[in-house]
Amino acid sequence: MRHPLLVPDLRELIRDGEVAGLRDFIAEYHPGRVAELIEDLETDDGDALFRILPTQGRAEVLSYLESERQSRLVESMPPKDAADLLHLMSHDERADLVNRLGEDTIDPVLPYLAQAERDDIRRLASYEPGTAASVMTTDYVTLPARITVREALERIRREAPDRETIYYSYVVDQDRKLIGFVSLKRLILSRRSATVEEIMKRDVIRARADEDQESAARQIDKYDLIAIPVVDASDMLVGIITHDDAMDILRQEQTADMLAFGGVTSGAESAQETYWQGRVVQAVKRRIGWLLFLFLAGFLTKHVSHFFRGVQLKLPDLMDFVPLMIGTGGNAGSQTVGTIIRAMALGEISHADGVRVILREWLTGFLLGVSLGAIGFVYIWIIHGSWAFAAVIGLATLFICMWANIVGALVPFLARQYGIDPAVVSAPLISTMVDATGLVIFYSVAIVILIKLSG
Amino acid sequence: MRHPLLVPDLRELIRDGEVAGLRDFIAEYHPGRVAELIEDLETDDGDALFRILPTQGRAEVLSYLESERQSRLVESMPPKDAADLLHLMSHDERADLVNRLGEDTIDPVLPYLAQAERDDIRRLASYEPGTAASVMTTDYVTLPARITVREALERIRREAPDRETIYYSYVVDQDRKLIGFVSLKRLILSRRSATVEEIMKRDVIRARADEDQESAARQIDKYDLIAIPVVDASDMLVGIITHDDAMDILRQEQTADMLAFGGVTSGAESAQETYWQGRVVQAVKRRIGWLLFLFLAGFLTKHVSHFFRGVQLKLPDLMDFVPLMIGTGGNAGSQTVGTIIRAMALGEISHADGVRVILREWLTGFLLGVSLGAIGFVYIWIIHGSWAFAAVIGLATLFICMWANIVGALVPFLARQYGIDPAVVSAPLISTMVDATGLVIFYSVAIVILIKLSG
Repeated sequence: MRHPLLVPDLRELIRDGEVAGLRDFIAEYHPGRVAELIEDLETDDGDALFRILPTQGRAEVLSYLESERQSRLVESMPPKDAADLLHLMSHDERADLVNRLGEDTIDPVLPYLAQAERDDIRRLASYEPGTAASVMTTDYVTLPARITVREALERIRREAPDRETIYYSYVVDQDRKLIGFVSLKRLILSRRSATVEEIMKRDVIRARADEDQESAARQIDKYDLIAIPVVDASDMLVGIITHDDAMDILRQEQTADMLAFGGVTSGAESAQETYWQGRVVQAVKRRIGWLLFLFLAGFLTKHVSHFFRGVQLKLPDLMDFVPLMIGTGGNAGSQTVGTIIRAMALGEISHADGVRVILREWLTGFLLGVSLGAIGFVYIWIIHGSWAFAAVIGLATLFICMWANIVGALVPFLARQYGIDPAVVSAPLISTMVDATGLVIFYSVAIVILIKLSG
Repeated sequence: MRHPLLVPDLRELIRDGEVAGLRDFIAEYHPGRVAELIEDLETDDGDALFRILPTQGRAEVLSYLESERQSRLVESMPPKDAADLLHLMSHDERADLVNRLGEDTIDPVLPYLAQAERDDIRRLASYEPGTAASVMTTDYVTLPARITVREALERIRREAPDRETIYYSYVVDQDRKLIGFVSLKRLILSRRSATVEEIMKRDVIRARADEDQESAARQIDKYDLIAIPVVDASDMLVGIITHDDAMDILRQEQTADMLAFGGVTSGAESAQETYWQGRVVQAVKRRIGWLLFLFLAGFLTKHVSHFFRGVQLKLPDLMDFVPLMIGTGGNAGSQTVGTIIRAMALGEISHADGVRVILREWLTGFLLGVSLGAIGFVYIWIIHGSWAFAAVIGLATLFICMWANIVGALVPFLARQYGIDPAVVSAPLISTMVDATGLVIFYSVAIVILIKLSG
């Protein structure tokens, strides 16, 4: 419960049917908080609180509720009320909600909506998921170029109640081509008799409708925008994406990168799916691809290991260190690839930095390997009593750390070179790559020191 | 080069000294794009373009330039010009810039600034890094409760040129206590004779100055705000954090989670440091802790392996499968922990879901293990010719996948239970935990099937 102090008072007001008091009370709250209160209350009380809200309030609160609750609340309304609610909702939220509702619910509601609204819902729902168009909304302000600032402000004021944002207005020509942009701040600061054309910015940062939603969101982030306009192939304005939706997109995409880093295939749909939404079979489907590939690749270690059967039987103690050696390689490699993918995601390293990055990671691996190797050397010398054996562990650790760091740095660059998103380079992939090669390093060092030098 | 078509034209205008033409041209562009053009041009031309800008334009463009370039440009200005620039910059950017400049540069500039501005810079620079206060700005609009909407709009218009945002205004009492909030949209839609008090929202979502910057940014994200007010311990308004800064914070924090997942310790400072800023020694420091811990923990596998010396010598072929078995466990565990940490970061699973999550992951592990195990069984039967040996690999794969999935799901919950950020639970940690236990599972299955049953 997020509001333990408020909930008991609210419950009492609801059960006493104090509608006026409740409305006054709730009016002070952000719609997101009202949604939390509704979810904190017992279901019946929460539903009652929602029904008490004025239609405008309902429209604002609804989008903050969990999606199943949204559907249930709308399903239980008379069709006319549901239509009034949809009419007041922001256009993107409305299209999402209608998509989730069954035909039984929505068919009686549609006749109460204007034709333009029905078309808008259909159009917004029709865009390919993952594109900029699929996350845009259509309730924005457009201005013609020739009107004055006074007229523009009047128009904005008139349209404000139905607009997702009024802080940016987009200037379009008679074909709805996007030709300029003006912020409300600029309008307020301009002479009232100036024309929009005189004060607008002509270089409008925009997204293409079929562009990846992430790249549109990144523009909002990069240029600190409140919204970005979305245009079609002929530069006609078709919608806007607002900063809050951009934040949601980036959050989803970045946490999807974490899935990928763990070795789970993340498509556009899995990025949007919550943990509970998908069924177990879908989770298995997203995981089995990489896991099977790495399992089959892992059979290589069997052959490498078999190749060194002679040294294993001669020095069976060596075998006991295999998990430690390849594990350390995997760990160092995971650290490196995490570091590199992050720096790539933040745009801190580009393709041209490849050689510098690899040298830097090699040096890091060298320093890490020297530290771990020295500790391993001392430990083994003490418990094993053989300096030669200790030297094998120490040196193999050093070489494996350097090698793992180089692999961890190189593979994301190679991925990008071949047009693969470096975010698919996962910790398991690097670990598996380092397993077989780590075995070769380990046994080779052992052969040189324990057999060639000592014997 | 991000603007290959514009740069040659610009270069020509700059070299011909076409100041008026350049100003007109540049005026159409977003300051972020002007900064890109400056960085795309040769250094001298870029510097010249910056100097041509009106002071307001310079103040806007500066914050989009790389920080070294910012410092160099300000250092080369006469102190009076630098002061004019600082005067027009947003307050948080200004404080950051002054912090980066040497005393030699800033001391001659300070006398040109008003006392209030000097105090503001000092105060903003004094907050603990990582707190909400350290990322806030002080150029926001406050309103008294008793004035009318008409007066409020007039005041906002007057103050707009110096304000980071005018879209949200904060209502304070005579002690500067935060008592309300009103959006410009609401002001525009209200009766001009109403008072601010009548239309403001009293439940203001706010951040505490000493709160973690990430939690403040998350509120902006959650409630779709353009800005969040920051208050001190006595609820006095001390600043605001805007949506664009919140986006930067969340981007930094989320990519820091990726570092942590790779097994790199990420403190507040490393989250803000770029890949190139820290020296190699610092990268080593952030990595050696986990790597050494896991290295020492990995010695456990040596003892486990040694414990099974008898079965190893009896069936040396088993040893060849050790890297594959523990590698598969590590991979499955990494996938699970990536999935769980992401779902926790998105708030999709809470503590109460522990048992459900572990059951779900166990089932996922079972299905993955059955698939991989079956493939392993067939493969080994074909190449090895022994169904018993194939059964060991198949069954061990199944048990290890189930076990790794349980460990990968359980550990983040345990971490959270003990007040540890689950994001520190890394792929390398889970891999290492599964290594020793995976060995036990593998050799135990081998003993039961190959020795107890067959012999």
